[in-house]
Amino acid sequence: MELLKQRILKDGQVLGNDILKVDSFLNHQMDVQLFNEMGKEFFRLFAHKNVTKILTIESSGIGIACIAAQYFNVPVVFAKKTEAKNLDSDTYLAEVFSFTKGKTYSVRVSQKYINPNDIVLIIDDFLANGKAALGLADIVGQAGAQVAGIGIAIEKGFQDGGKLLREKGLEVQSLAIVQSMQNGKISFSE
Amino acid sequence: MELLKQRILKDGQVLGNDILKVDSFLNHQMDVQLFNEMGKEFFRLFAHKNVTKILTIESSGIGIACIAAQYFNVPVVFAKKTEAKNLDSDTYLAEVFSFTKGKTYSVRVSQKYINPNDIVLIIDDFLANGKAALGLADIVGQAGAQVAGIGIAIEKGFQDGGKLLREKGLEVQSLAIVQSMQNGKISFSE
Repeated sequence: MELLKQRILKDGQVLGNDILKVDSFLNHQMDVQLFNEMGKEFFRLFAHKNVTKILTIESSGIGIACIAAQYFNVPVVFAKKTEAKNLDSDTYLAEVFSFTKGKTYSVRVSQKYINPNDIVLIIDDFLANGKAALGLADIVGQAGAQVAGIGIAIEKGFQDGGKLLREKGLEVQSLAIVQSMQNGKISFSE
Repeated sequence: MELLKQRILKDGQVLGNDILKVDSFLNHQMDVQLFNEMGKEFFRLFAHKNVTKILTIESSGIGIACIAAQYFNVPVVFAKKTEAKNLDSDTYLAEVFSFTKGKTYSVRVSQKYINPNDIVLIIDDFLANGKAALGLADIVGQAGAQVAGIGIAIEKGFQDGGKLLREKGLEVQSLAIVQSMQNGKISFSE
């Protein structure tokens, strides 16, 4: 998506070789007009899947998911992160290992909010190692529901999450795929 | 706001005398159509304040804030919660005591995203003891910016947060004020 790529080039900051800071428009300050264009694009990509629900994960996915949901006209559910395992029997739970934080956390969704008839679009701001998206897909599976696909704002194409998810047969659509950030220069793949 | 009150009566669950569970439409599963009506109402209430930015706090405020921001045509910033004090010198920080969790956490906003010219509308899903909203107002003050007001989805009128904030001269507009939840029966104040 050209608008997002241009914005990343304009306002993204590369730290080291693998951290892309986009907190001026994506995940701390949020440009809701840009989110609307992203929402339209997710709808163009996934409209044919008859999505009944959007699933995201707190916190950075929530804004993008809510704006996108307006185009699909479906509710959003956000998975909650907790460090402790939650023993509540009425939640679906997945364990997600975060490389950036170096620890495993639990992700929970109440069983009430995904049911076997649901066709669930997973939306998140970033895709790197793919563990969060895999955890969300696992939760959809636990519910006996179907994953419509995975919509990502920015995929780090040099990490293996996208490959991992696509090899599992999941449709991943990333609005921008960063191929390299060597020496602070961002390049995208098609 | 009648639509929200009716939804609380229909789908809200009272646990004990002071917990109101609205996670089927407000803060776990999110009814984005309802959020749009809430966003319109916040705009009606605060349009004359020339709001330049909406400030909320992760996670439950983010969806409501993003949908509302479409009416104001301004960016959203969400404050990040961290248990540890963050020593990063380029963030505004407030300490917030959570009665429900029985602990103090830090709330941070990058200094880049609130500036002295900003007129900031604070939006959150719940107002109970008011500590989160006070922390956000404090951050706006640290930035030398102005608080336009505080927009809340559900205020617990039987807790003292609303009184505390209004006594400080802050304009608080709550779309529904729950006055009592005795014996599981929800009543609203005008």
